[in-house]
Amino acid sequence: MSKRKKFLLSESEIPTKWYNIAAEMKNKPQPMINPQTKEPIKAEDLFPLFAEELSRQEVNQTDPWIEIPEEVRDKYKIYRPTPLVRATELEKALDTPAHIYFKNESVSPVGSHKLNSALPQAYYNKLDGMTNITTETGAGQWGTALAFAAKTFGLELAVYMVKISYEQKPYRRSLMQTWGAQVIASPSMSTKAGRKIITDHPNYQGSLGTAISEAIELAMQTPNCKYALGSVLNQVSLHQTIIGLEAEKQMEMTEEYPDVVIGCFGGGSNFSGISFPFMRHNLKGDRNTRFVAAEPASCPKLTRGKFKYDFGDETGYTPLIPMFTLGHKFAPANIHAGGLRYHGAGSIVSQLLKDGYIEAIDIKQLDSFEAGVLFARTEGIVPAPESNHAIAAAIKEALQAKEEGKKKVILFNLSGHGLVDMSAYDQYLAGDLSNHEVTDEEISKFLAEA
Amino acid sequence: MSKRKKFLLSESEIPTKWYNIAAEMKNKPQPMINPQTKEPIKAEDLFPLFAEELSRQEVNQTDPWIEIPEEVRDKYKIYRPTPLVRATELEKALDTPAHIYFKNESVSPVGSHKLNSALPQAYYNKLDGMTNITTETGAGQWGTALAFAAKTFGLELAVYMVKISYEQKPYRRSLMQTWGAQVIASPSMSTKAGRKIITDHPNYQGSLGTAISEAIELAMQTPNCKYALGSVLNQVSLHQTIIGLEAEKQMEMTEEYPDVVIGCFGGGSNFSGISFPFMRHNLKGDRNTRFVAAEPASCPKLTRGKFKYDFGDETGYTPLIPMFTLGHKFAPANIHAGGLRYHGAGSIVSQLLKDGYIEAIDIKQLDSFEAGVLFARTEGIVPAPESNHAIAAAIKEALQAKEEGKKKVILFNLSGHGLVDMSAYDQYLAGDLSNHEVTDEEISKFLAEA
Repeated sequence: MSKRKKFLLSESEIPTKWYNIAAEMKNKPQPMINPQTKEPIKAEDLFPLFAEELSRQEVNQTDPWIEIPEEVRDKYKIYRPTPLVRATELEKALDTPAHIYFKNESVSPVGSHKLNSALPQAYYNKLDGMTNITTETGAGQWGTALAFAAKTFGLELAVYMVKISYEQKPYRRSLMQTWGAQVIASPSMSTKAGRKIITDHPNYQGSLGTAISEAIELAMQTPNCKYALGSVLNQVSLHQTIIGLEAEKQMEMTEEYPDVVIGCFGGGSNFSGISFPFMRHNLKGDRNTRFVAAEPASCPKLTRGKFKYDFGDETGYTPLIPMFTLGHKFAPANIHAGGLRYHGAGSIVSQLLKDGYIEAIDIKQLDSFEAGVLFARTEGIVPAPESNHAIAAAIKEALQAKEEGKKKVILFNLSGHGLVDMSAYDQYLAGDLSNHEVTDEEISKFLAEA
Repeated sequence: MSKRKKFLLSESEIPTKWYNIAAEMKNKPQPMINPQTKEPIKAEDLFPLFAEELSRQEVNQTDPWIEIPEEVRDKYKIYRPTPLVRATELEKALDTPAHIYFKNESVSPVGSHKLNSALPQAYYNKLDGMTNITTETGAGQWGTALAFAAKTFGLELAVYMVKISYEQKPYRRSLMQTWGAQVIASPSMSTKAGRKIITDHPNYQGSLGTAISEAIELAMQTPNCKYALGSVLNQVSLHQTIIGLEAEKQMEMTEEYPDVVIGCFGGGSNFSGISFPFMRHNLKGDRNTRFVAAEPASCPKLTRGKFKYDFGDETGYTPLIPMFTLGHKFAPANIHAGGLRYHGAGSIVSQLLKDGYIEAIDIKQLDSFEAGVLFARTEGIVPAPESNHAIAAAIKEALQAKEEGKKKVILFNLSGHGLVDMSAYDQYLAGDLSNHEVTDEEISKFLAEA
């Protein structure tokens, strides 16, 4: 009773710089490579695609701290700083000696951490004189974030939304439209890439790979228009470090320090965000914090994938990226954590995993929802299906501490809420969800094609 | 740029007492009356229905301050104190000299202010030794709030949900079930009241009146079980004053004082919550703040109703309540602001309106959504359809200030977000929504029946 529950910062404590971990890594992440020339990608090579400052951030391996523009910090104030919360009710339910903290990114008006990168991406595009911007979205978290960010900086946004999600997740589509974005089901007739696949496969339900191709094609053909992406890229991890930088200050208020930091893992954006600021003390040898990436068992790139150069998209339009991958043709099962259904990990996380700074754990779908329901019934927040993976990993750590009779300080990132994903909970509560196994043969087959 | 956006309190500043305005009103609200005996209702008369302390709060006209139990304050910490936000982006869009502030109750994990009363109601029932509790819900905001509150205090909850909402708002139903409540479409076969109406009208889509009857009947027939209600009652207004008490401290931080305080109006719970703490200074003659209740034009009890004794429910099971009413048989149009579709106002608000402390304004459905979309595109938060009425009234005040070239400080309550109401925005953006006029003849007819 009467324990302090939330640890809040004031707006003046919003970080003024993002943390660029690449500058402090002993083994630098390997560069992206142009598949035609086999040359490493330089910032200028990316200018046609991304805003210039974003292109520079993408390849920056020298500056550990990058200034957050005043205009972006001003917009961050809409929802930041986000609370750090002690999960006292969950601790009680688990009867664990562990202290469990979570960083609550679900308080963003779009419901997830994605806005942390959407705002600077929209800002830098505006700064470059763009009037329009394009992107793709799978489940819709990224698309909703960029819809508001584009509107607030005065850009017109077109979102290619994977057709099956467009039909199954009408609320996410409505959200994007309410914020003023144009949403097109992909594949569409509006691009060559879309027209080709619709003609070849009339009933095709879409994929992130196709949606990326359409968004890039539209950006390339539209004056004053560039393209934006919500995960995997180094620039995205950079922007997301605002999560961990705030959390670091807030952990000081608790007078504890995390023994283990946990994030769910899709392309790496929220995991990098919560982890890198704490990890810099490991890099310097000052701390021995554990970092656990929780991925779905049905898409196990970190636990069962291979480190190699691979494409970022299914059709092979992107540069080659050095990554832990299941192969860019890998087709993950249709789990509800749509944000984690990605075949590869960003280049920085991949290098850090290789170098032993990161552990990975795979979580089965049913275990993730069991954890999410317990969290909802104790802490009150219904988590996003993606975030349930981080919660399941945190619960595992807490139960282990109980078994060992040891105190342990656990910090995880609650990347978003699940209020727009309730059909997933419906199916779980009705007993209609299942786990999805991936065989070693499947993984070998897709890796051989990559 | 760089203006302060949010005004935050620490957990230790969560109020320790609720404010009971009835104790300080010169003209006390008239008592509820037993329709059989015609006697005023005393606390003991309510014990079979409500927890004992709640029954005492319901009729208390002497104590201006009522202690918030430590156990309730502890649960309030899950989401309270809520932020007071300066709507700088909305101000810019309106180009107004007015300063617009809003109290953001949408950050509650159930998405609205309803949890402020659900938590104490569940707590006092637990204290009385209850193991079960029942309620009804229309659109679902109250049901979701009580679902989490019941779970967190270890009570089993049964919610009778109006059948049409049960079918049209599956996400709200899923939310209640995720928090562990049993949800039954009303009318149901589980009660006499439900069975009768199903038998008489096999295709009946349900109403709040029927759902109330079913919830009361189940509570009366279940051992260790009482009933809970989310609006209209004095106890609910009392609990909701935590909104205005926090806002008062936060307005001090802004170094401004509201010229006008605005809330949307259904049964009165959120309007009373934001208003009463500020209104006490008017009662003492120290301030001349204006208080504006924003009701839907299609359900205009405050602007076009009549003050009289009327039933709180359609079928007449409740005591007679002194209220501004359209008649308890009034059937409001099926607008999307489901929480505002109620025929009457609570007895305290009704007395204050009569005595000139409150102004009322009616807002048309299309104007409410226009305001809501502008708010979403500027401040980032998609508001609940109910809250859109408060926003529309605030915008009206701000534009008037612009016309008059006057500074004006406006405070409104953002009672909740609309993330689970996106189908309403869909219809608005598609041009499929309309306004609903009520004729004087209709009002006279229903009032004559009351």
